[in-house]
Amino acid sequence: MPKAVVSRLSLYLRELQRVIGSGKSTISSTQLGKMLGVTDAQVRKDFANFGQFGYPGIGYRCEELTENIREILGTKDRLWPVALVGCGNLGQALLGYAGFDDQGFKVEVAYDVSETIIGQPLGDLQVRDLRHLEVDVREKGIKLAILAVPAAAAQRVTDQLVEVGISGILNFAPVTLVVPDSVSIAEVDLAIQLEQLSFAVVKQLEKE
Amino acid sequence: MPKAVVSRLSLYLRELQRVIGSGKSTISSTQLGKMLGVTDAQVRKDFANFGQFGYPGIGYRCEELTENIREILGTKDRLWPVALVGCGNLGQALLGYAGFDDQGFKVEVAYDVSETIIGQPLGDLQVRDLRHLEVDVREKGIKLAILAVPAAAAQRVTDQLVEVGISGILNFAPVTLVVPDSVSIAEVDLAIQLEQLSFAVVKQLEKE
Repeated sequence: MPKAVVSRLSLYLRELQRVIGSGKSTISSTQLGKMLGVTDAQVRKDFANFGQFGYPGIGYRCEELTENIREILGTKDRLWPVALVGCGNLGQALLGYAGFDDQGFKVEVAYDVSETIIGQPLGDLQVRDLRHLEVDVREKGIKLAILAVPAAAAQRVTDQLVEVGISGILNFAPVTLVVPDSVSIAEVDLAIQLEQLSFAVVKQLEKE
Repeated sequence: MPKAVVSRLSLYLRELQRVIGSGKSTISSTQLGKMLGVTDAQVRKDFANFGQFGYPGIGYRCEELTENIREILGTKDRLWPVALVGCGNLGQALLGYAGFDDQGFKVEVAYDVSETIIGQPLGDLQVRDLRHLEVDVREKGIKLAILAVPAAAAQRVTDQLVEVGISGILNFAPVTLVVPDSVSIAEVDLAIQLEQLSFAVVKQLEKE
């Protein structure tokens, strides 16, 4: 399954959450596609990878499709505990990021290796020594980690994460990580958002 | 133009950059679509919004399509100077983010309002007093800003940015900003990446 299809499920989910918020109960593949700039055929093809969710003559029932997508994404009736590794500037900033909880993720434990940071309070947490990783991960059943360590440490820490059973890593370190096939890596490409803005600014300047 | 279409241009661009790196000079809409999990019809439709870029029997010439996309996104032969506003944890972390430069963006000036941060060195920059914003933006021709201030200050700072002529804002503050139609806002939804991981982890667990 291409990553982009799974990303689109997230985008469909956000649109559905908005649509439900505005009081609508059903939506057609054409309407849903329009919001994401894809054809209605693409919408149906995306969902057909996972099942049959539409109703002839009705379209999709928003609440039901939301639940179906959450089921596919693994976030239905479930809060994923997440380990944050690296409590420098980025780690601290990420801990304050509000967008995780709503979608079913919670940073439950934060680690560092620096003696000056370990033990410090950070939001609702207290920074823990990375040496506790193995015991914590087992006890809390943690499968996901956010990697916010310096580039030089990233692969070494990744190896540790893999060894203790982490199977999904959101990588903020500017390095390509090597992991076994059974482990997934996701990266954030912030330039995409800036490109959206440069596009819009150029369009706006042309208009003026 | 839906934001998602413009985002896909960025994703096509990244794939083309990879494909060129691996030594290929042409690519079909089917191949390009496969990488992003969209149909070849969707690929052609996305590009048809902007012009006619393919060659019958050949597909797309990778270098040429790369240039075409950069032209559309406004990043061809151009480095956009960006203002970073807010030099707390997040701002400092963003300044270290390596992914901007490659795509044509450079944080040229960083601001804060705190006396303890103003004047401090930050990467290659020195944090400046937000009071200098207007003069700097005019002198450097800055159109894009990254907003990394606390939620409580976000709208006030946004108003300042708009007033001095910033037309694109990448917003990291967890608030919905109000701006005139001529100003564009982009947001980062980090939960999308975590959802990709939860999806992958669930799939992996089913396999085991």
